[in-house]
Amino acid sequence: MSDTSLFHATPVFPRGFRCASRNVGLKPSARDLTLFASDVDAAAAAVFTRNHFPGAPIILGRETIKGGVLRAVIANSKVSNVATGARGVENARRMATAAAAELGTSADRILVSSTGVIGVQLPIEKIEAGVVGMTAELQGDPMVGAEGIMTTDTHPKALSASVGPATITWVAKGSGMIEPNMATMLSYIFTDAAFDAATLDRLLRAAVAPSFNMLSVDTDTSTSDTCALLANGLAGAVDETEFLRVLIAGCTRMTQILARDGEGAEHLIRVEVTGALTAQEAHVVAKSIVNSPLVKTMVHGADPNVGRLLMAVGKCFDCTIRPDTTDAWINGFQVVGHGERLAFDDAVVRTTLSQEVVVLRVALGVGSGDAIAYGCDFTKGYIEENASYYSS
Amino acid sequence: MSDTSLFHATPVFPRGFRCASRNVGLKPSARDLTLFASDVDAAAAAVFTRNHFPGAPIILGRETIKGGVLRAVIANSKVSNVATGARGVENARRMATAAAAELGTSADRILVSSTGVIGVQLPIEKIEAGVVGMTAELQGDPMVGAEGIMTTDTHPKALSASVGPATITWVAKGSGMIEPNMATMLSYIFTDAAFDAATLDRLLRAAVAPSFNMLSVDTDTSTSDTCALLANGLAGAVDETEFLRVLIAGCTRMTQILARDGEGAEHLIRVEVTGALTAQEAHVVAKSIVNSPLVKTMVHGADPNVGRLLMAVGKCFDCTIRPDTTDAWINGFQVVGHGERLAFDDAVVRTTLSQEVVVLRVALGVGSGDAIAYGCDFTKGYIEENASYYSS
Repeated sequence: MSDTSLFHATPVFPRGFRCASRNVGLKPSARDLTLFASDVDAAAAAVFTRNHFPGAPIILGRETIKGGVLRAVIANSKVSNVATGARGVENARRMATAAAAELGTSADRILVSSTGVIGVQLPIEKIEAGVVGMTAELQGDPMVGAEGIMTTDTHPKALSASVGPATITWVAKGSGMIEPNMATMLSYIFTDAAFDAATLDRLLRAAVAPSFNMLSVDTDTSTSDTCALLANGLAGAVDETEFLRVLIAGCTRMTQILARDGEGAEHLIRVEVTGALTAQEAHVVAKSIVNSPLVKTMVHGADPNVGRLLMAVGKCFDCTIRPDTTDAWINGFQVVGHGERLAFDDAVVRTTLSQEVVVLRVALGVGSGDAIAYGCDFTKGYIEENASYYSS
Repeated sequence: MSDTSLFHATPVFPRGFRCASRNVGLKPSARDLTLFASDVDAAAAAVFTRNHFPGAPIILGRETIKGGVLRAVIANSKVSNVATGARGVENARRMATAAAAELGTSADRILVSSTGVIGVQLPIEKIEAGVVGMTAELQGDPMVGAEGIMTTDTHPKALSASVGPATITWVAKGSGMIEPNMATMLSYIFTDAAFDAATLDRLLRAAVAPSFNMLSVDTDTSTSDTCALLANGLAGAVDETEFLRVLIAGCTRMTQILARDGEGAEHLIRVEVTGALTAQEAHVVAKSIVNSPLVKTMVHGADPNVGRLLMAVGKCFDCTIRPDTTDAWINGFQVVGHGERLAFDDAVVRTTLSQEVVVLRVALGVGSGDAIAYGCDFTKGYIEENASYYSS
């Protein structure tokens, strides 16, 4: 499914990057504040949610990233600081200032993120008090930082890979309210390769398009989505083409990890659409399939109700779809030919649908546009988590 | 919520319309074949799904309705006759022919519908044998016909109302795979008012736009959606404006009934959007809210996580949304002002969210476009029904 041999068995940071994570009282006892820091200034790029109600950290972050230089990222979980007005933006600034003071740099070099419940003011005093002394705790395991930004994630998420003399490290969180439009929930990428901010921005956008932007857990685009790429240059220059190849591979792998850990998810669904009129139409059809509640429940129940695949393709009203040229496969097993459900052994399809990774492939036969989308099944666990998320 | 006094306490048919319903062996014992018939030819109009994989009955129905005249509708449940190729279309024709022979009319005056699982060939012999003798069983209770077209519906659905000397009767089924784009799953409207087919077509489209087309149970557009309006003229001419008013009221009421009986649903959600830049943008925002899994689970759990309302508004990237002019209410209780979550008594909002009907109102403050959409909450019942629909 992806070239996992590319990634280190245990994730490590690039030269000069470290992190620390603490409980500062936002959650009862779990880590809720994380600091990712570079020993030296890093060139940086970031993409943010396109939601019209961006959180206060996004409003501040768009301003901060214009400088193209970051020393650190500070992120808290439990409260997202969204829909909190002018006071929310002021609190995000105070969070940057507190981290800058702790690290001995300026606030305009700190990217702030908050994730958690919407519409609650940040307990900023707890964060300001909590960040003091974190510099002394900075250490080299990215998983420690990943743990501090978890909300409903069931495990912390970090990856690393080598590119020539340099390292790239991905740390992310996902779970729910995920159909990123510029990036996923919170995703930080660190490298010691040397690139300027403009190049990083271009590389980041190229890597996010086929990976995080093709992920959907529940069609709901978060107000906090942030994906940042920091390059401190300590490993010197590396080949840009090779760097982009590894960057895309890591973003794609992290996308799969986020999909598999979608709220309540038990299966990773990968949808491959080929032969669409254009790449854009392939994208629309792939998203339609991966987002269909009836496809998602079909995978959940391992119920070979394959007509739902056609339904999800067919509801893309504005795409060129020809029933007589449409074929479909589940994990390589053909279930639809020329727009008709094929006769197949139910037990075989049921078995293949029971695998942890379910690949749904649809060949439209009208052009050469391709797309791959990532998602997960729909379970009672999703309902359970989200019927009481605010209160719990 | 709607003027229910308009509707008869017990639904009746217009003059000259009757129905019969039988078990012909598609389901173990429940009624699975229904015949709706007019004593005389009726002028008729119909709208069908926009899904690119229309069922065989839709392919045939588009041809049939060109004639503008119907004597009867024959509909079966359990098998939808979708993705069944040329044989499926041939079976739909045989179903029309069988009904025509039973009624002593021609097959081009019979509208055929099938609802149920996709990708399975229709047991046409059972239907051909089963329809024989149904004319003798035609009777005046629309609920009997409604029962025969149920799939996962929890109750049969019929309404009737008077317009001057005429009657309008609605019979429908809904439940899952419902985000109609031209009409809902299966919805038949009968009247003894006299209109020609062209007028009926215009009236039907005007009535469907603000009602069935604003309904979504799960964002999944069925391959079988059909809404037909039959007018046999036995009550003579009626005022067109008054007829349209009642037609819209009945379609809207039936939309609410379908939403409340969405698969697994425990709440009817009505989303009112006002002050959008255009009516089209209001429509997009209303659908975004009513379709958001996180809004739907918030209602299900009566959890006042009102930031999700803003998220769902804000993810309408192409609409004009200004956080500072956006207000929101739940059942008349204001929870968002100027794009910020207001301080409110959790217990009060929790109580109002626990009501069977939950009205979510969002005022965008940027124009005068309005829209109302209908949906239901997302529950474990939906997951349960759809993880094993094919097999059960």
